Amino acid sequence: MYYTPLLTDFYELTMAQGYFLKEKDSQVVFEMFFRRNPFNGGFSIFAGLGELLPRLENLRFRKKDIEFLHKHGTFRHEFLEYLSEYRFSGDLHAMDEGSLIFPGEPVLRVHTSMIEAQLIESLLLNQINFQSLIATKAARIYSAADGDRVLEFGLRRAQGMDGALSASRAACIGGCAATSNTLAGQKYGIPVSGTMAHSWVMSFDSELEAFRAYAEIYPENTVLLIDTYNTLGSGIKNAITVGRELKAKGKKIGVRLDSGDLQYLSVKVREALNEAGLHDAFICVSNDLTEEIVWQLKANGAPIDVWGIGTHLVTGGNDSSFTGVYKLAARWSQNTLIPVMKLSNNPEKITNPGVKQVYRFYGPEKSPLGDLICLEHEEPEHNSPVRFNHPTYKFNHFIMNDYHSREALLKKRISKGRICAELPALSEIRNSVIEGIQKLDTSYKRLLNPHLYKVSLSNELRDLKFKLIDELSGG
Amino acid sequence: MYYTPLLTDFYELTMAQGYFLKEKDSQVVFEMFFRRNPFNGGFSIFAGLGELLPRLENLRFRKKDIEFLHKHGTFRHEFLEYLSEYRFSGDLHAMDEGSLIFPGEPVLRVHTSMIEAQLIESLLLNQINFQSLIATKAARIYSAADGDRVLEFGLRRAQGMDGALSASRAACIGGCAATSNTLAGQKYGIPVSGTMAHSWVMSFDSELEAFRAYAEIYPENTVLLIDTYNTLGSGIKNAITVGRELKAKGKKIGVRLDSGDLQYLSVKVREALNEAGLHDAFICVSNDLTEEIVWQLKANGAPIDVWGIGTHLVTGGNDSSFTGVYKLAARWSQNTLIPVMKLSNNPEKITNPGVKQVYRFYGPEKSPLGDLICLEHEEPEHNSPVRFNHPTYKFNHFIMNDYHSREALLKKRISKGRICAELPALSEIRNSVIEGIQKLDTSYKRLLNPHLYKVSLSNELRDLKFKLIDELSGG
Repeated sequence: MYYTPLLTDFYELTMAQGYFLKEKDSQVVFEMFFRRNPFNGGFSIFAGLGELLPRLENLRFRKKDIEFLHKHGTFRHEFLEYLSEYRFSGDLHAMDEGSLIFPGEPVLRVHTSMIEAQLIESLLLNQINFQSLIATKAARIYSAADGDRVLEFGLRRAQGMDGALSASRAACIGGCAATSNTLAGQKYGIPVSGTMAHSWVMSFDSELEAFRAYAEIYPENTVLLIDTYNTLGSGIKNAITVGRELKAKGKKIGVRLDSGDLQYLSVKVREALNEAGLHDAFICVSNDLTEEIVWQLKANGAPIDVWGIGTHLVTGGNDSSFTGVYKLAARWSQNTLIPVMKLSNNPEKITNPGVKQVYRFYGPEKSPLGDLICLEHEEPEHNSPVRFNHPTYKFNHFIMNDYHSREALLKKRISKGRICAELPALSEIRNSVIEGIQKLDTSYKRLLNPHLYKVSLSNELRDLKFKLIDELSGG
Repeated sequence: MYYTPLLTDFYELTMAQGYFLKEKDSQVVFEMFFRRNPFNGGFSIFAGLGELLPRLENLRFRKKDIEFLHKHGTFRHEFLEYLSEYRFSGDLHAMDEGSLIFPGEPVLRVHTSMIEAQLIESLLLNQINFQSLIATKAARIYSAADGDRVLEFGLRRAQGMDGALSASRAACIGGCAATSNTLAGQKYGIPVSGTMAHSWVMSFDSELEAFRAYAEIYPENTVLLIDTYNTLGSGIKNAITVGRELKAKGKKIGVRLDSGDLQYLSVKVREALNEAGLHDAFICVSNDLTEEIVWQLKANGAPIDVWGIGTHLVTGGNDSSFTGVYKLAARWSQNTLIPVMKLSNNPEKITNPGVKQVYRFYGPEKSPLGDLICLEHEEPEHNSPVRFNHPTYKFNHFIMNDYHSREALLKKRISKGRICAELPALSEIRNSVIEGIQKLDTSYKRLLNPHLYKVSLSNELRDLKFKLIDELSGG
């Protein structure tokens, strides 16, 4: 899939021409942060970086793009000439892909010219927002399934082709073991898997015949869909017949439930399988599952082994967008770097000024305790207490004591337009997510009403912020 | 964007190999229908067909796809040979793109071999489900805005690149006047538009300077974002200064509100503009809008002229998937076409058997009264009363009287693998949607608790359905 800078909101181009004509293409710093955790959750997962970086490195206007802009009539010849030579030549810092991230903190930072920074905004947000949404959803489901295999089945309900492909990638990052999307398997090396459809069963003269035919062709991977006609009336019985036939050959079966009450049916099906001596047969379920349903079924002891999740996993379900934004943090003017911020009638839309770094403080075994947003040149204390200031309320703060270590999270990924850091394999990112979630205190992982993870300001940043608020509001 | 049949759920491939090896690749009929209107609405819009048809016509496995499947180890040589020659060679009937559609009725029908029918399922559902979701959302917003200009601004929150592009297309079908997505403008010929970002304002030493610079470059299209610092304190004042300067040159401005209470602010801003003599200045708003918010602001008389809608429009917001499914309806066996159906522990997952057509009955001025699902060979009465049978409850029915006309909705689009019907231009589809919605009775368009549009079964289809239910459930 080719990425052209034409994948941009049109106003970026009109503004870019404005900077170009006004000779205001000065060096700037933009930062990406997000406003709230999706799904009323207590954490989010940063994803999409591994695809974004090569796309930024290779971003070029095609000849037909320039012609399209020319025909639009809004752009002058000299600006189009500039665009035809356009490259992203700046620096980009970001957290590791797969990091736990929290609202209000910069997760990515771009140092470049104003025009370059604006022309990548829409692409950058499009990629990171969506993959972070889905990786977060997957991590929640993975947590709820408590180590069971979770399969991503979302292609047919995903938001377009790329909505499916990049969702498969992000779902894998968030803990899924496999995808049904064959193209995602090819593109990303994710294991692909699948069972059978109702149409398979319906295309034979009997359910038993359909099951036998499948077992004959795929004896190593016989997962029988037992709810086409009547799960307990015929489906499980026919599955047991085939399961016994396979058992005689040293093989095992799985059964899949795709409708009905999964708690009730899985218990009945488990009993029937066990009575038939098929203790090694596994039960896979699907049917509009969410992390809440998975969690509840697990808590109630439903004997389910594998979870196939489609719609809600690849679209986010009832929370279908990630609230990442990309805001100007500082700009150079006459050899001085000026921190800037945006006020707003909505207090939560006020930004933090200046070029920033995020330090994560850890307790024993690298369990995260809280994040401190600092100005870039600051380095917080290492072995003594550190003051964490509330990001909005001027006089609220607490003292971070007893931490074991702390770490700067934003690292350079692109230097002068070229990728300068390794892009880890998907499986490596997935492992880091699983480890990160394991180390995160349970209170932040509750599905309902989680504890608020603290993201605070350093003293210096807090002072700068409130000084600028006073200046800008004329107070 | 290249579409390969590898964009499929893996089980389609394993089942296809099963049909191939078992020599069960008989002719079949699959139908697509959907289960519920999204957004708790009373109607949906059928979209995506114009992109799907050429993709089906050109669907081919690439050499590297066959190699990928070979390496997977699951597929036999002779089946891979078959795949490398694979084409979609069947027939496809569908409703017009932009049609009003209702739950339970077939909107698309495929006649082909079992393998071909299965290998297109995931692609077909992926495309139609997503674009129908977004076209439906757009149509709801367009209705709520009551003829005002609605702009689609969703790229940065869309679900991937294609989630953005095909959303722009579907939003246009559903009534949007323009998109911010420049690439969508190039690809589909949709008008592109945009205003300015907060970063434009922040990159100048003052708001007034920023506004003046923009007006100087784009005097024909000066839409000033007035909420960067203080909407009523500085934004509107600086906009009026620039508005007066432009007015002196015979030009006009627009202002954009992107935060705060849009009712309160739009009233205050309108007053200020009018007092300054800028009666022709228009007000554009954005900020996480939904059709409910638009409807409410309109009902309360907020003086808003243009609506910029992003997130909820391109993702569906809290209802982010369309419930379209694709089910086997009939299969040939020994020269007989056998109608088939799926039972289920969930009654709403029971399908209607047989090859079907949908007739829409109209009142005066082509206002839709109800849809009747028939078997393909049936043609309902034309000038006399017709019995509409409830799709689930055997003895529920009503008599359709006093209709003015009726029309068969499923028409042939692909014949033996080749497109055989014209693909209308996007603007034409958009006009048909707007007209269709205007003719639809208000009761079906209520945002909350709409009237249920009747989708019923013909006598013959009802009899077939209940006969099969009895047979399959062994009753």
